[in-house]
Amino acid sequence: MSMIDHAGMTTELRLDVQEFYFRYAECLDGGRLQQWPEFFLDACVYRITTRHSLHLGPGEDLMSIKSKTSMRDRIVAIGQSEDYEPHVQRHIISNFRIQAAAEDDLRVQANFQVLRTFHERPTELFVSGSYQDHIAVSEGRMNFREKICVFDSEVLPESLIYPI
Amino acid sequence: MSMIDHAGMTTELRLDVQEFYFRYAECLDGGRLQQWPEFFLDACVYRITTRHSLHLGPGEDLMSIKSKTSMRDRIVAIGQSEDYEPHVQRHIISNFRIQAAAEDDLRVQANFQVLRTFHERPTELFVSGSYQDHIAVSEGRMNFREKICVFDSEVLPESLIYPI
Amino acid sequence: MSMIDHAGMTTELRLDVQEFYFRYAECLDGGRLQQWPEFFLDACVYRITTRHSLHLGPGEDLMSIKSKTSMRDRIVAIGQSEDYEPHVQRHIISNFRIQAAAEDDLRVQANFQVLRTFHERPTELFVSGSYQDHIAVSEGRMNFREKICVFDSEVLPESLIYPI
Repeated sequence: MSMIDHAGMTTELRLDVQEFYFRYAECLDGGRLQQWPEFFLDACVYRITTRHSLHLGPGEDLMSIKSKTSMRDRIVAIGQSEDYEPHVQRHIISNFRIQAAAEDDLRVQANFQVLRTFHERPTELFVSGSYQDHIAVSEGRMNFREKICVFDSEVLPESLIYPI
Repeated sequence: MSMIDHAGMTTELRLDVQEFYFRYAECLDGGRLQQWPEFFLDACVYRITTRHSLHLGPGEDLMSIKSKTSMRDRIVAIGQSEDYEPHVQRHIISNFRIQAAAEDDLRVQANFQVLRTFHERPTELFVSGSYQDHIAVSEGRMNFREKICVFDSEVLPESLIYPI
Repeated sequence: MSMIDHAGMTTELRLDVQEFYFRYAECLDGGRLQQWPEFFLDACVYRITTRHSLHLGPGEDLMSIKSKTSMRDRIVAIGQSEDYEPHVQRHIISNFRIQAAAEDDLRVQANFQVLRTFHERPTELFVSGSYQDHIAVSEGRMNFREKICVFDSEVLPESLIYPI
């Protein structure tokens, strides 16, 4: 069980995958929502769910998006929402587990913790969980083919309109 | 003091060590307690202590286990405990410091932060601290020879029966 | 945008940079303040600021130090402060983004989260934010040329005299 097997992945690829996530987080933490869809393939899946609901299927998801076009609609909706109270996020992404599913497809799992800071308030823990993703690799480019954010808690944050 | 010296460790080995910890955390976070002893040598040491008690010796430990057999007994005890309130853990492991003590022995230090989520409750910070470990490397396999979990706080969590 | 480009940085250098930060954190978390200035060039910049104040310039900084000598003065001041309540820090550093600005200068961005533990109290989240740094590389040695700690929150921690 403790055998290390990377199926031929180079150390460079392993570090590149981590960096891909760190650029993704930098985009969200920097509030550059317009660039968020660029990390995905045109035909993609983006879901937010919980540990408890994961195996109940997409119908129980907190958010479920199935194309880049829907992502763009989502961004417009966030900008127009009256419920949205401005704040900044800080992603801490760690515990990467990378497996090559095929030459151009990586299965990646990682832990995330998102901290949140509202104006004139101290920073607080927002959510934690794991990413269960598929990354398409083509000519040195990476894009999420499927990204599932699995929250640890079933208690829904009051304003889950911002991507994780 | 700022000199980098890895004593000949390859980048692959450095990443493999991190991955070994991430698989260990994945096992615990996934609740697969039965597999926990498989990350250790048959003759091993597993201790949970605090910064304050570390230098007072094993007698002051919060938990002290000295063989794989005792680990298995521990798992049975956890399953039978009436105090145990079901929850999930989430390990964030970072700040790896790896030193080769010998060809088949690595001295590894890392920081951990464990988040905890009880049913229908928001996620909360549980404990933080550092691992002070020795890993045996044999034919591409890694196993903990000694694992010491050093908590930052002396305040004992109410239910410290689950491995960290 | 999703193109990976490391400008010729080796995987070894990328891991060495991370390790440099982990040794820096180990020094602070271990309370070895006297060694803190050794991670910097003689002529260096160390600033603590907030997301909100970052672009208002150094005049709005929470802390601004411009030489190793001033750092040593700072350490003496901390030791003599009557307001200082003993506690330990725990740095979780992640999300490294490394860019080579020149052969001997690296531009590095990373996320940090600092946990804090006072005597007989549980561990708590202290601050989070990002490092925006320049590292000088010379003959295998790394030293901070400039280190800017950007806090997410504008709410000032009550005792901001300890380095981050």
